[in-house]
Amino acid sequence: MGHLIELMNSLFKEIRNNPLLWLLVFVPVLFAAAKLKPEAHTLLFVLSVLAILPLAVLLSHATESVAAKTGDSVGGLLNATLGNLTELVIAATALRAGQYMLVKASVAGAIVTNTLFMLGASFFIGGLKYHTQEYNRVTARFQAGLLFLATIALLIPSAVSQADSATAMAFTQQLSLGLAVLLIVAYGLGMVFSLKTHRELFSSAESGETGEAPWPIGLALATLAGVTVLVALVSEIFVESVQEAAVAFGMTPAFVGFIVVALVGAAAEMAAAFSGARKNRLDLSVGIALGSASQIALFVAPVLVLLSYVLGPVPMNLQFWPGAVVMMLVATMATSLVTNTGRSAWFVGLLLLMVYLIFAMTLFLLPPRAP
Amino acid sequence: MGHLIELMNSLFKEIRNNPLLWLLVFVPVLFAAAKLKPEAHTLLFVLSVLAILPLAVLLSHATESVAAKTGDSVGGLLNATLGNLTELVIAATALRAGQYMLVKASVAGAIVTNTLFMLGASFFIGGLKYHTQEYNRVTARFQAGLLFLATIALLIPSAVSQADSATAMAFTQQLSLGLAVLLIVAYGLGMVFSLKTHRELFSSAESGETGEAPWPIGLALATLAGVTVLVALVSEIFVESVQEAAVAFGMTPAFVGFIVVALVGAAAEMAAAFSGARKNRLDLSVGIALGSASQIALFVAPVLVLLSYVLGPVPMNLQFWPGAVVMMLVATMATSLVTNTGRSAWFVGLLLLMVYLIFAMTLFLLPPRAP
Amino acid sequence: MGHLIELMNSLFKEIRNNPLLWLLVFVPVLFAAAKLKPEAHTLLFVLSVLAILPLAVLLSHATESVAAKTGDSVGGLLNATLGNLTELVIAATALRAGQYMLVKASVAGAIVTNTLFMLGASFFIGGLKYHTQEYNRVTARFQAGLLFLATIALLIPSAVSQADSATAMAFTQQLSLGLAVLLIVAYGLGMVFSLKTHRELFSSAESGETGEAPWPIGLALATLAGVTVLVALVSEIFVESVQEAAVAFGMTPAFVGFIVVALVGAAAEMAAAFSGARKNRLDLSVGIALGSASQIALFVAPVLVLLSYVLGPVPMNLQFWPGAVVMMLVATMATSLVTNTGRSAWFVGLLLLMVYLIFAMTLFLLPPRAP
Repeated sequence: MGHLIELMNSLFKEIRNNPLLWLLVFVPVLFAAAKLKPEAHTLLFVLSVLAILPLAVLLSHATESVAAKTGDSVGGLLNATLGNLTELVIAATALRAGQYMLVKASVAGAIVTNTLFMLGASFFIGGLKYHTQEYNRVTARFQAGLLFLATIALLIPSAVSQADSATAMAFTQQLSLGLAVLLIVAYGLGMVFSLKTHRELFSSAESGETGEAPWPIGLALATLAGVTVLVALVSEIFVESVQEAAVAFGMTPAFVGFIVVALVGAAAEMAAAFSGARKNRLDLSVGIALGSASQIALFVAPVLVLLSYVLGPVPMNLQFWPGAVVMMLVATMATSLVTNTGRSAWFVGLLLLMVYLIFAMTLFLLPPRAP
Repeated sequence: MGHLIELMNSLFKEIRNNPLLWLLVFVPVLFAAAKLKPEAHTLLFVLSVLAILPLAVLLSHATESVAAKTGDSVGGLLNATLGNLTELVIAATALRAGQYMLVKASVAGAIVTNTLFMLGASFFIGGLKYHTQEYNRVTARFQAGLLFLATIALLIPSAVSQADSATAMAFTQQLSLGLAVLLIVAYGLGMVFSLKTHRELFSSAESGETGEAPWPIGLALATLAGVTVLVALVSEIFVESVQEAAVAFGMTPAFVGFIVVALVGAAAEMAAAFSGARKNRLDLSVGIALGSASQIALFVAPVLVLLSYVLGPVPMNLQFWPGAVVMMLVATMATSLVTNTGRSAWFVGLLLLMVYLIFAMTLFLLPPRAP
Repeated sequence: MGHLIELMNSLFKEIRNNPLLWLLVFVPVLFAAAKLKPEAHTLLFVLSVLAILPLAVLLSHATESVAAKTGDSVGGLLNATLGNLTELVIAATALRAGQYMLVKASVAGAIVTNTLFMLGASFFIGGLKYHTQEYNRVTARFQAGLLFLATIALLIPSAVSQADSATAMAFTQQLSLGLAVLLIVAYGLGMVFSLKTHRELFSSAESGETGEAPWPIGLALATLAGVTVLVALVSEIFVESVQEAAVAFGMTPAFVGFIVVALVGAAAEMAAAFSGARKNRLDLSVGIALGSASQIALFVAPVLVLLSYVLGPVPMNLQFWPGAVVMMLVATMATSLVTNTGRSAWFVGLLLLMVYLIFAMTLFLLPPRAP
């Protein structure tokens, strides 16, 4: 009992330091509202977004604290697998509800948002303060290579698929399962490469060190468990309300999945990436943005395919809407082109942001029945 | 009156120095022919091409002279906005005639011609004289980045568009308007970056200095105004005659718009780019070729969309024929690959020319009804 | 007669040194089986694969020996034109049988196999032994440039083609003929560039020196002639049996053409490339893998189009199945991205192998009627 009080104290201290955590008040408010006014979709949508943001920050901090305690390799592994826990929980909730369109849109959107918006805004914010900035391009190239592989894997089912016959569906499903396994293997071997055999190449990338002191391991583990449950509960309300709220706001489902869900899910990482850019620690920003994108592409997306066999009404495949494939392909190419030199200035960030804006505008205007 | 005579003298001196300007004699010949034989489309087509060439040279020289007088930032701005005045006037004329297919083909063709033919021939010509040549790759990368952005903007409407329903048409039109505004903003910010905040990075690019002495400002402004009117008049005959002349020459409309109009419109810049390559001033050639391409993609094309609301029978969108999108995409990728090193030899130029030849051959052979 | 005995002796000495050549025993076994059991397709398929492997090794050694004797330029020329003689003979046999699908699949497959599998496995094998390896990136860039050109040429007929009307067919055929001529010209000029005008840039690429002593010219020429005839005879049985054997093995025709034929045809080059990687002579591996890919794309494929006018029932065009075009495009992009730095480690090879695995898996699962 005294232990619990100590934990609570640490947590409250944390909340006092980080103003974003005041938003935690919206978690009980949301649950109350969901009980009292289950039909108020727009209200529930806004409340669930406000509730997810602080939970994502806590989850991110808890993961890092556990990682910091468990030593380098296990810590790196933990960070690399749980870094996008928020996205994973939201998508798994949508999966359980059978909303595969939303799941796929949020996966594609997360890749595009992390590479174009998070990286672009980091370059732009950093560039407003510093004339030019440098970063370790080995990290960037490595992540761009992983992203390239994942993009090919997500492109192939659309590129070779035929009419919607039963044979074609079975083929796409088998192929998706194979691709999922292959991507997870590639992700695992990529960690062996970057954390073990060739770690010295990635040395200057200070990813993971956000400068805050890590929590005690007990608090970290308890937070990790408790907050994951809370995120799952909040996500359920979020997923239920998002489509109808979208209509109320005049947004297309494609825009909601691709842009809104992706931005909400990545809010915690963004805060860290932007703060790194402002402190001229661009290695941190590049590591978070591209690492997060490749983790979603090579780990979260395939895990969702595997989970769909357990959680979903029918198995999910990796065949994306062609427009989403084009956007992921463009995002990967843009990342490759831009990170080629290891130098950045404000206009480099602006170019990435402009490409993101083009995609956001397209999805916003897209007639509802499209994807 | 004495002022006018002085202007005329300067102009005549110029004409004596530049043999291409003797072609000015075809301007009155064309107008006479158009009055006397309005049905002789093939003759009018040939005469209008011959008449546009010297006018483009005059326009280019006048723009540079005005730019040289007005100081660096305003001058750079002027050069960057009026550098492709010939292409703009020709396309605006086609716009007024409602020939949107020709407008789009000429825009796509100008991008492809400038990146593949003008840059390729510059590398090739320079490479025949010098074993290897170097140039500032920051300039090349900057322009390639702008072109990449523009290509994405021109690719997206085709990538996400659906059946030709009324909803889809309205969506494409809205999207095109948004993209047009976004491209112009990106172009403007690009000028802020290259002419103001980070101009030192572009230092060795001696773009704009063709080595000729600038004209007096009066002559330059008068020429600018007068020749623009002449180009507009000649373009009108050119646009009217080009389709029927194409049939007479056995050329497809796609080939005419993409190749012939683009080569005619860019003749003046090409002369400057090739002369730069021969003098081992490859920065000049790269600056003209890629600068011109990105100006057409990020400034001329969007301005034409905006102008279509005023000049055209209906608004024009940015949805291009898929074949043209592929060609623009390939041209942008080829530029990125080739300018990556900042070094060039004859075979690099040859590769670009070969890609251009593939496109020209394809368009020449394409059955008429295709695009 | 004594001359013949001497030749035979050299040949037997060679066979004793290279264990792979013991497989030559399958050549007479295959011919006997084809006479006695012409319906045993699966057996004939296995035997013909076993028979082609040692013949390819002999052919490769003979070509190099002739090349070594004839001096640098002629030798380079010979090596560059006959280096893929096995692939050419197999494809020409399929051409005579009118199996254009198989011809095209084997061409596309050879490009993809050489760039992704041969290069990837070289990097991976070398990387398991050496922490990082370096190679001349000018060679890699040059070959990637040639491959880029070829990919554009093979992409364009699919990108602009329309419905299967007679007009469209005639257009595709004309275009393919033009593209074939253009590719051969580009390949020839590429040799002038790399072997003559700019050979010093390619200096550290020790391609062609496999370390073995060359044969006497008489033996080499006799082997070249005799083995080519044998390969042609074996290929005939291979081509006849491959489709039915594929069914027996549960493989799709696309998988057979793309993967099996390509691996069989390139076996000899692979042995040399992998051995180079193990000896830390990565320039050799890169030269063989990419040189072989660009030779097939810019020389073998166009020659097959020209040959089809003589050998085939109807002329062959260069319009590929869209899935194959995507795979060739991805392979070229992957090569460009990966060879950009001139450095390699095991994970770089793994990435290329993973992309290859994605393609192989897709083709293996693809329902039979697809391509």
